[in-house]
Amino acid sequence: MIKVGILGRRPARSICIPAWMQAVWRSARDWIVGIFAPATRAVAHPLQQRFEYEIAPRSLRQDDSRTLGTHLLVELYGCNGRTLERVAYVEKALVQAAHESNAHIVSHFFHEFEPYGVSGVVVIEESHYTIHTWPEHRYAAIDLFFCSETVDAERALEVLRRAFEPEHIDVMLIRRGVLDKTPG
Amino acid sequence: MIKVGILGRRPARSICIPAWMQAVWRSARDWIVGIFAPATRAVAHPLQQRFEYEIAPRSLRQDDSRTLGTHLLVELYGCNGRTLERVAYVEKALVQAAHESNAHIVSHFFHEFEPYGVSGVVVIEESHYTIHTWPEHRYAAIDLFFCSETVDAERALEVLRRAFEPEHIDVMLIRRGVLDKTPG
Repeated sequence: MIKVGILGRRPARSICIPAWMQAVWRSARDWIVGIFAPATRAVAHPLQQRFEYEIAPRSLRQDDSRTLGTHLLVELYGCNGRTLERVAYVEKALVQAAHESNAHIVSHFFHEFEPYGVSGVVVIEESHYTIHTWPEHRYAAIDLFFCSETVDAERALEVLRRAFEPEHIDVMLIRRGVLDKTPG
Repeated sequence: MIKVGILGRRPARSICIPAWMQAVWRSARDWIVGIFAPATRAVAHPLQQRFEYEIAPRSLRQDDSRTLGTHLLVELYGCNGRTLERVAYVEKALVQAAHESNAHIVSHFFHEFEPYGVSGVVVIEESHYTIHTWPEHRYAAIDLFFCSETVDAERALEVLRRAFEPEHIDVMLIRRGVLDKTPG
């Protein structure tokens, strides 16, 4: 037995359904969602293929009234591979992104791997920025996690775009620490 | 003019539609998705309310054949507040989680804020683990990002669950660096 909310806007009700019906339900749901909401479907898909977050500048700011933090998962595809190889260059870019987006740096640490690849974290008072690069795939995974309305993530994205020259950027925005759920 | 894919399973076509039609389209889409896919809708919703990722143990492993990394966004609600206050305790828990999940630690850094709250990062050869705590909300935001099939994130989650005693855990799994998209 599992709990299933029949309609999205109503409180969930408990019903008893066998496994084969659950499978049929999931297939039908995925098919319908695939037609009506390609972007949303892609998020649910384990590979998030073709997902591209629609960026509206206002949505990139943290909203303190409802959540504790805002987390941007940034995928840079088709970068200039040489920019991803050198730890000094990557460090400079991420630190600059933190400065220019009004984040307050507490500490930062960067590491270059053999034969290639850089990992780096910038701990900020507002949470963290991180980067991991795969020069051989011309790809970088960047996280911008912040808990203050003063952080201008749009500006950080612009700095990173200029530094690594990606052909394509995917951004996923996740709100962290939903206040309705915190008992405190 | 914007590019819109009419149906999720067909290649996107370019059409010219005015702003009001875009707004109508978005409203209709959100309404339909809200009915047919409550869990999926919750991801698209800026607050991701009621989203709970269905965890199957096998799905928590990195799949090197299709992506470069696996990222778990872990929300711990209703924790034992005292465990979130002390930097030494938080550091020990996250480092232990890294060790027990077979991650290889490169460096780690933890910081305690005034009047309360801890931020910490563990850079691992496989990417990073991070934590940010809000003791006043009994909440912690944890990220487990790894790019190797050898990392046992399920084990890490178990260590963190024991350390912080949350009443409720939300886990969102995101695949990072989709290989189909990398030109390299």
